[in-house]
Amino acid sequence: MRQTQAFMPTMKEIPSEAQIVSHQLMLRAGLIRKLASGVYEFLPLGYIVLKKVEQIIRAEMNAAGAQELLLPALQPRELWEETGRWEIYGAEMMKVIDRNKRYFGLGPTHEEVITDLVRQEVKSYRQLPVILYQFQTKFRDEIRPRFGIMRGREFIMKDGYSFDKDEAGLNINYQKMAQAYKNIFTRCGFDFRMVQAGSGNIGGNLSHEFMALANTGEEAIYYCDACQVTLKAKESEEAQPATVEKQICSKCQKEMQYSRGIEVGHTFNLGTKYSAKMKATFLDEKGESKPYIMGCYGIGVSRIVAAAIEQSHDDHGIIWPRQISPYQVIVLPLDVTNEPVKVGAEDLYTALKNKGVEVLLDDRDERAGVKFKDADLIGIPVKVIISARGLAESRIEIKLRKTGEVFKLNTEEALSKIKELI
Amino acid sequence: MRQTQAFMPTMKEIPSEAQIVSHQLMLRAGLIRKLASGVYEFLPLGYIVLKKVEQIIRAEMNAAGAQELLLPALQPRELWEETGRWEIYGAEMMKVIDRNKRYFGLGPTHEEVITDLVRQEVKSYRQLPVILYQFQTKFRDEIRPRFGIMRGREFIMKDGYSFDKDEAGLNINYQKMAQAYKNIFTRCGFDFRMVQAGSGNIGGNLSHEFMALANTGEEAIYYCDACQVTLKAKESEEAQPATVEKQICSKCQKEMQYSRGIEVGHTFNLGTKYSAKMKATFLDEKGESKPYIMGCYGIGVSRIVAAAIEQSHDDHGIIWPRQISPYQVIVLPLDVTNEPVKVGAEDLYTALKNKGVEVLLDDRDERAGVKFKDADLIGIPVKVIISARGLAESRIEIKLRKTGEVFKLNTEEALSKIKELI
Repeated sequence: MRQTQAFMPTMKEIPSEAQIVSHQLMLRAGLIRKLASGVYEFLPLGYIVLKKVEQIIRAEMNAAGAQELLLPALQPRELWEETGRWEIYGAEMMKVIDRNKRYFGLGPTHEEVITDLVRQEVKSYRQLPVILYQFQTKFRDEIRPRFGIMRGREFIMKDGYSFDKDEAGLNINYQKMAQAYKNIFTRCGFDFRMVQAGSGNIGGNLSHEFMALANTGEEAIYYCDACQVTLKAKESEEAQPATVEKQICSKCQKEMQYSRGIEVGHTFNLGTKYSAKMKATFLDEKGESKPYIMGCYGIGVSRIVAAAIEQSHDDHGIIWPRQISPYQVIVLPLDVTNEPVKVGAEDLYTALKNKGVEVLLDDRDERAGVKFKDADLIGIPVKVIISARGLAESRIEIKLRKTGEVFKLNTEEALSKIKELI
Repeated sequence: MRQTQAFMPTMKEIPSEAQIVSHQLMLRAGLIRKLASGVYEFLPLGYIVLKKVEQIIRAEMNAAGAQELLLPALQPRELWEETGRWEIYGAEMMKVIDRNKRYFGLGPTHEEVITDLVRQEVKSYRQLPVILYQFQTKFRDEIRPRFGIMRGREFIMKDGYSFDKDEAGLNINYQKMAQAYKNIFTRCGFDFRMVQAGSGNIGGNLSHEFMALANTGEEAIYYCDACQVTLKAKESEEAQPATVEKQICSKCQKEMQYSRGIEVGHTFNLGTKYSAKMKATFLDEKGESKPYIMGCYGIGVSRIVAAAIEQSHDDHGIIWPRQISPYQVIVLPLDVTNEPVKVGAEDLYTALKNKGVEVLLDDRDERAGVKFKDADLIGIPVKVIISARGLAESRIEIKLRKTGEVFKLNTEEALSKIKELI
């Protein structure tokens, strides 16, 4: 992509509306714009990242045997009344009244809809287990939308649901999903912890949160570096992070680390909470009618983009983890009015594109300082700098966004170095 | 994918709720299920097709220089009041009142939101032109939702918008988009016509509809086979297709063909309809403030899936065009209790998967008749039949869904034949 043709509006100033660094940088780098409180537009650069995250999640979910589908956002009130959640969810669920005066909720989550679908199609234990998931826009009328897309009112979620004939089956699928989640967050480049947690509005017997460690996280955890034991901090500690107590690991007796965290995933052992209320049953081996044993598995897809920035940035801007960076390489001709520099950059851009490299070319007629600032702001991992001085020495400069490491190479060496780096 | 593990519920009976063949077959083949009037769930098999259509559209839009983004479904009332469409759209727009008593429309289309975004970011003619598009769930509270996903209340649309500094620029982009649309519908396997049309609720000066020809289409057109002239039939003719009048082509004086059609795409020359009302302006070469000249480009993504089935089916089921078929090949072991048949099918399935072929294996313990019926119903283009009799002769049978053509080949020949066919 050529920057002169890209819809990629960057901002110099720190927007006053944004309190945390990911929100500031997403606005400044032109990844998102605000339409209303808690309602954001993903601009092209941000959307590429969102799609990359989605693709990582899809690959791991499919590899774990889950099948993708797409459920509606509009959910009939009657389904939510079967579980009693029409009342329980209350004002957090946005509602629509259609022209025939029927009520719909705008799905904040999809347990009722998926359970309704499966109860119509899966009648026998022979058809179990099944894991279904979707990527979808969810709606929650948060009391305090904040931190940009971190806590929005309209956001993208991956929600998955497993259906089993017994607890043993659920446990297998729950472990499969937990492993898929670990793979996903590792591939996204996260420093994260899996923590046992409560279950909130979704409910069930047991749940685990996946926390990306970050100072700005809304949650607080203790974790043991030695043995992987983790626990969530109590409410009072969350309110006053200054008064962190010493926690000793129950397993290895070492002192635990304290960290704030961003919840990027949550898995729930639902048991029969939904299936029993919704009379969602199958016939077991003995011909007896039993409710499905369910699990539920959520990932905040849009939130991952923000969490990745919280974990990986510096004073100059974003530092994208390689796997979710919108582009792998940015080519920076320092002066496009200098013909050899312009031609050298164009040739390299074309060569990289032809090799299938995702490359951005800053072909704008701007000063070198502006280009460096914007390149650091948008955070592409590999910068390739073409300057008149470099060309005089037959040298191209490769600079890594994260470490600042520099390589000065001829064109051929540069192409093979780039291949090695991405 | 193994059919024993797939969530792929097929139906033998024709569902009474479905009047047209695509709706019947989408239900029977397990592509969709109904949640509420005009609100459908895409099951895994249907969702794969939807994603393939999406990918074709994305590739052609990107190749034409358009950039993908994602706008919210929730749209503040104030934006729609700027253009007067809050009133005009009326009951067709679904509405949400949030907990602070603010009104939002659930986007039936996104002219206001995209114009608002661009007016904040594009201030100079130097930043133009720009074409932006998205894939998104749209909401329209149709008076008569019908024909399954053909006319639903929640559906997937690709909507694109171009912004130019002058009419000449718009004309160039309009032609680019028209060409992209022709490429897209050709790749989807459609017999289609581009027809000049009215502009309805979207408005503007000129528009074109892209019609997939099909007897069950809600629209009616005349077209000239000799010179590509097309025109929409008048309302009265639509209501009474029996009284089709003779139409003579204005260009070559030949008699025109009459056909019913399904609108799968629509391009609009909007001019300044939205930009003028929304004071969405840029500074031109002379430093004068001018409203953007806009175009708007829609494709009914979910509708394409239904339209493809209307155009390509027989009494036994769907006949997928190769490019949007959920799988390229289905392997049918006629008796999985016969060990050599089972092993032969498994080996072939693995070999095809390893070659990157999208392959479905009907590993169910069902009679041959049931397997043939289901395979024809779901419409995979290439059927590969493994039977005891065939194996005795060292022969695998390949049968094409569309033509019924049969090839009896040994394994090696079969693998290379399949590669040739897909």
